[in-house]
Amino acid sequence: MAHGGNIFEIQRNCNIHKDDLLDYSANINPLGLPGSLKAMILHSIEDLQHYPDIHYEELKTAISQYYCIDKKDIFVGNGAAQIIFDTINALNPKKTMILAPTFSEYERALKVSGSVIIEHLLKEEENFAVNVEELLKVMDESIDLMVLCNPNNPTSSLLKAEEIRMILEKAVEKNICLMMDEAFMDFVDEEQQYSMLQYYKEYDNLVIVRAFTKFYGIPGLRLGFGLCSNKNLKEKISKRTIPWSLNTFAGYFGKVLLTENSYVEKTHTWLKNEKERFVEKLKEIDGLKIFPPSVNFILIKILKPGFDVLQLQEKLLEKNVLIRNCSNFGNLDKSFFRIAIKNSVDNDKFLEALREAMNK
Amino acid sequence: MAHGGNIFEIQRNCNIHKDDLLDYSANINPLGLPGSLKAMILHSIEDLQHYPDIHYEELKTAISQYYCIDKKDIFVGNGAAQIIFDTINALNPKKTMILAPTFSEYERALKVSGSVIIEHLLKEEENFAVNVEELLKVMDESIDLMVLCNPNNPTSSLLKAEEIRMILEKAVEKNICLMMDEAFMDFVDEEQQYSMLQYYKEYDNLVIVRAFTKFYGIPGLRLGFGLCSNKNLKEKISKRTIPWSLNTFAGYFGKVLLTENSYVEKTHTWLKNEKERFVEKLKEIDGLKIFPPSVNFILIKILKPGFDVLQLQEKLLEKNVLIRNCSNFGNLDKSFFRIAIKNSVDNDKFLEALREAMNK
Repeated sequence: MAHGGNIFEIQRNCNIHKDDLLDYSANINPLGLPGSLKAMILHSIEDLQHYPDIHYEELKTAISQYYCIDKKDIFVGNGAAQIIFDTINALNPKKTMILAPTFSEYERALKVSGSVIIEHLLKEEENFAVNVEELLKVMDESIDLMVLCNPNNPTSSLLKAEEIRMILEKAVEKNICLMMDEAFMDFVDEEQQYSMLQYYKEYDNLVIVRAFTKFYGIPGLRLGFGLCSNKNLKEKISKRTIPWSLNTFAGYFGKVLLTENSYVEKTHTWLKNEKERFVEKLKEIDGLKIFPPSVNFILIKILKPGFDVLQLQEKLLEKNVLIRNCSNFGNLDKSFFRIAIKNSVDNDKFLEALREAMNK
Repeated sequence: MAHGGNIFEIQRNCNIHKDDLLDYSANINPLGLPGSLKAMILHSIEDLQHYPDIHYEELKTAISQYYCIDKKDIFVGNGAAQIIFDTINALNPKKTMILAPTFSEYERALKVSGSVIIEHLLKEEENFAVNVEELLKVMDESIDLMVLCNPNNPTSSLLKAEEIRMILEKAVEKNICLMMDEAFMDFVDEEQQYSMLQYYKEYDNLVIVRAFTKFYGIPGLRLGFGLCSNKNLKEKISKRTIPWSLNTFAGYFGKVLLTENSYVEKTHTWLKNEKERFVEKLKEIDGLKIFPPSVNFILIKILKPGFDVLQLQEKLLEKNVLIRNCSNFGNLDKSFFRIAIKNSVDNDKFLEALREAMNK
């Protein structure tokens, strides 16, 4: 399945150097790499000669401290993708409910494991937000696993913790396991109103997936973690995990996590200011419907008759601008695309390119 | 299961800094990191901000050129471990034959996938070499998968390509798939007499596993590849592979592979000279049986009555020296250990430490 951020493919196929691309297709923190990460890598290159700590103790300790969660409930992986695949393989569900649209790798992992997939269709007229009342109605004993992505990719819509708790109560009653993908949660303002991190201990049927990829701008490092207070389930997942699944630098990321308070603050300040400004400017462009973003990416629908995302992609690529075509997401068609929010200078360039492309 | 090279655990538990350890428990090239690898990392730190090429095209092209194999038959993974796990999961064998002793991760992956495991016991009196005639006798239709490790870990014994071809012919006849782990093959002198790389195209039932970990001294980078000319099987394996399974630096390793001829030469020169010298010196120590090594590691048996590997490990740890206790390998007991071959200075230190430990 296609993903955003495939700048190497564009470089190969279109003969544009990757550094000349304005990549709005991947939702990565535009503040760049945290300074302490570069320092850590420079300092530890020679350590590539050693196997990483197979238990990643230092990293788990740092994650545990940073998020105030129990170290023994944490398992780390080669990107959130590994947490997702290993969890689905360990649960081996017969029937799984996912949102539509949502991140495509759940479906890929579920198909490999042979699960029947039920799509819970989100409604455009509700801005693709999860309607909890309706979701509760369709949760029954035949479902083994439910996957929620919060904030959801590509819709950027957000469920509150109290809503998720209602879903979890029903899930407990119906014997459904919930995999909660919070890969973008670090970007959320007042995270504690939305994340399940503070409540995970209460639920035996909950696996939380987190990633450092997006917030710390490090999709090339490959690092995510899972959280589960159900000891048996956690062990079942860990049994499937390949040894030394994180590289040396990812294994040392705890050092970065515990020292980058100002990076975190700057990121929240940037996003708070720029999100609002960018959305307002986008709304000024005719022929687009802007869905309200909760975090650093925005779902947009093209309303211009006879004009679809393929044409828009082509026009934008002429200006070296990439967007994420969303037509391969369930429940979306060729009128949808997703963009990242970047810094104001890049966003202004993007706005100009988009305006021109829409007016042609 | 325990592995060698767990210097972080030793550092935590024994309060010895990892850089002060003489680690003979992991079989890593002692020549250190290739110079071009360090340069590549320094040059591309900023690229961690991008998702790696999801297809790893440049890396596959380089591997294809370096080994003269077909690019379309190559799949890359987060260490050889991922190739092993994904292959076993894709094949989902009911019954699998492995050697005993051999690398422990086959058994772990097979147990997760639910396969029955048949151990083919290697004989001490034959230096734990695979006796092809006997192996052929026990290969029957009930076996779905056979795993061979060549050179075998921890025995360091080596099968010739012509012997493997006999095994493969029988495997074709009995409808058995063969996973051939050649993780240490780059160290072998006159590799073409032993590796299946040049013959893989002839066999539909063969998956070859290779690693850069050991030869290029980069266990912290996580990089291996698989090779399979059976398109259906390769696709089945690739379907299970998580996206972006290699980090940015591992994805750029092709640059290193194609420029390090002198590193390769130096490695072979070192190993040829040092292996012979080291083995001779080891043989001078009383109470040990040295099994003939084919590559950069040696299996050793303690013959001294009332003295086992746990005692030896303890005595050596007092001198900051690590060895690999082999008692958790199938078919081996508490009298076996494995050591790496390093440079002559370290080897002399090791010899002295071992001599003292054995004489106490």
